[in-house]
Amino acid sequence: MRAGPIISLASIFDVQKQKFRRVLYRGFVSELFVPYMDLTEEWYYRTYFDAGEYGYGSYASSLLPGADCPANAVFMEAYFPDEDGNPQQLPNAFCIFERYAGDIMWRHTETATPVTEVRRDVSLVVRMVSTVGNYDYINDWEFKQSGSIKVTVGLTGVLEVRGSEYTHKDQIHGESYGPILAENTIGSNHDHFLTYHLDLDVDGEQNSFLKSKLETVRVSNSTTSPRKSYWRAVVETQVDFTFVNPNKKTDVGNSVGYRLVPGSVVSPLLSDDDYVQIRGAFTKYNVWVTPYNESEKWAGGVYVDQSRGDDTLAKWSLGDREIVNRDIVLWYTLGIHHVPCQEDFPVMPTLSSGFELRPNNFFERNPVLKAFVSL
Amino acid sequence: MRAGPIISLASIFDVQKQKFRRVLYRGFVSELFVPYMDLTEEWYYRTYFDAGEYGYGSYASSLLPGADCPANAVFMEAYFPDEDGNPQQLPNAFCIFERYAGDIMWRHTETATPVTEVRRDVSLVVRMVSTVGNYDYINDWEFKQSGSIKVTVGLTGVLEVRGSEYTHKDQIHGESYGPILAENTIGSNHDHFLTYHLDLDVDGEQNSFLKSKLETVRVSNSTTSPRKSYWRAVVETQVDFTFVNPNKKTDVGNSVGYRLVPGSVVSPLLSDDDYVQIRGAFTKYNVWVTPYNESEKWAGGVYVDQSRGDDTLAKWSLGDREIVNRDIVLWYTLGIHHVPCQEDFPVMPTLSSGFELRPNNFFERNPVLKAFVSL
Repeated sequence: MRAGPIISLASIFDVQKQKFRRVLYRGFVSELFVPYMDLTEEWYYRTYFDAGEYGYGSYASSLLPGADCPANAVFMEAYFPDEDGNPQQLPNAFCIFERYAGDIMWRHTETATPVTEVRRDVSLVVRMVSTVGNYDYINDWEFKQSGSIKVTVGLTGVLEVRGSEYTHKDQIHGESYGPILAENTIGSNHDHFLTYHLDLDVDGEQNSFLKSKLETVRVSNSTTSPRKSYWRAVVETQVDFTFVNPNKKTDVGNSVGYRLVPGSVVSPLLSDDDYVQIRGAFTKYNVWVTPYNESEKWAGGVYVDQSRGDDTLAKWSLGDREIVNRDIVLWYTLGIHHVPCQEDFPVMPTLSSGFELRPNNFFERNPVLKAFVSL
Repeated sequence: MRAGPIISLASIFDVQKQKFRRVLYRGFVSELFVPYMDLTEEWYYRTYFDAGEYGYGSYASSLLPGADCPANAVFMEAYFPDEDGNPQQLPNAFCIFERYAGDIMWRHTETATPVTEVRRDVSLVVRMVSTVGNYDYINDWEFKQSGSIKVTVGLTGVLEVRGSEYTHKDQIHGESYGPILAENTIGSNHDHFLTYHLDLDVDGEQNSFLKSKLETVRVSNSTTSPRKSYWRAVVETQVDFTFVNPNKKTDVGNSVGYRLVPGSVVSPLLSDDDYVQIRGAFTKYNVWVTPYNESEKWAGGVYVDQSRGDDTLAKWSLGDREIVNRDIVLWYTLGIHHVPCQEDFPVMPTLSSGFELRPNNFFERNPVLKAFVSL
């Protein structure tokens, strides 16, 4: 049970075309890399791979109705083998609920002829919590009526702290590897990198990856325009991060696609030649795109912390394989550098990060026009 | 009514200290700069300053109960002068509601002794919608029990489109200044920059701005540690973006503070010498910090599009004034480069961006421990 929740065959019903259209073949957390920055004797080796080393699924927590999920949630149990291979049931491993947070899906007031139209933002959330030791990771996959798939991870639980002789900041002179959070308590600096495996099938299996660069254009001839500059989007073949099906076009000729809207991303700060970073080198870029290969599921390789890093996403990618008009996989890494503060102790308020896969010329026009009026 | 909602004297009740503690003296949208990238004759001058030119408050929309805001919302009217100076009432200009989106404020499952504790994330939202022409801006100020103040703007409404002879992408060869969205319809490329004026009073008026740099430390001597590297946070005086009250410390000696957690930010792409960018130069950096000055409310200056850009945040900042242990103002600009897609037409699903002011050693320990058990 290395993976947590696995989302398969995510599709959206296109009201205009009256059919389901595929977006994502399969999506899951491939690895979760948590290196601590504390070199003291009992700490230097704490550079965890929470999926490959522990099992993101095995550590699923039973969800508390009404607290972990709202009152309208339905729950699903999960089954997995225990350490002796016997089947185990985990009740309430998943919850699924309609979410209405009070947000607006779209609205407009036409000022001259006062007409206001509003549609409420109601979406479907699939949630699973994995408690790996001290941390609780809240995994949300949210499916919106607009076609967006929003993926969020919330980090909460209990901070991993180190005992210390210090009772006040002023007593610390050397390297403490993190701030003092309470008397005799140091909160060690650390990172969280979550790498998602996202096998996109945007309206079919054959997809391409487009990178748009925005470039400033200087207007040199003042007879052309009183303006001196503007920007335009220049699309490069290969890798804004749009995944298109080059074989399918909208009526006006745009390639059918989905766009990656990243949340907060950070890069690793460990040296490339550090043992743990050799294994965790898949965090070096926030976006990788590879052709689908059945054996390439785990960004950190099959053996993770037991390996020399030869079997990882960073190594597979050196092959420079063809990714145009292929069945491609997007690997997306979100990262957080965590310098603890006193509010993180003794329990941590949820800190969230995520990304969104947003339709980009996938529909002929705004699909939420079809949503029911709220009143 | 140049400003939209103005949040004044935002404070949080500290249960441990049994008193209200100030965080924000005043916060509002100072300017909203929307330059279009279309040089055709009827379009090149469309480089709007939606606050200074139009009035972000004057264009407030009456909110529809149950649609713009959830069923539990209460509404407030607003009064402002019309163009002849007569007082006008706008009903339902603001709504205020408790939000529970099904999210978790904090949780932990202790694996060895199966105990699970969960607290639901219930917050207070103040909402106002400003409809400036085609766009509807949804302004949310959200106050969390953790002490966080989360500011979000949602962009929706109707896209500003240009008529065109083209009916298909393949017919377009020259510069179209944006993609084709439907027959005879071009969606012009444009930006949105929202600049917030945030007069922080973190536990008092005298504040300082700390910038933390994370730096990689190489371990050269292998007898020190088997690790080759780690990172540490090095704090520089002046400007991660923490605002502290250097006169107040926690019991263990950390400076009382709040941290800016930015959302998506982008930089302007127009040339510095372009007329509109001279006026909109306050978007050049996403973060500015100035000493409080009563006359410095409007990032684009008093006269905005009527000016030569002499009276703007970019100019005031050249003074290099003292900002240590002063009453300081944080100017934060969030930005979106908008390349329209077909889903944005004919109405636009809400696209959100924002930032968070999060307590950082403001409390002695996690304040949400005091929240009621949800069940």
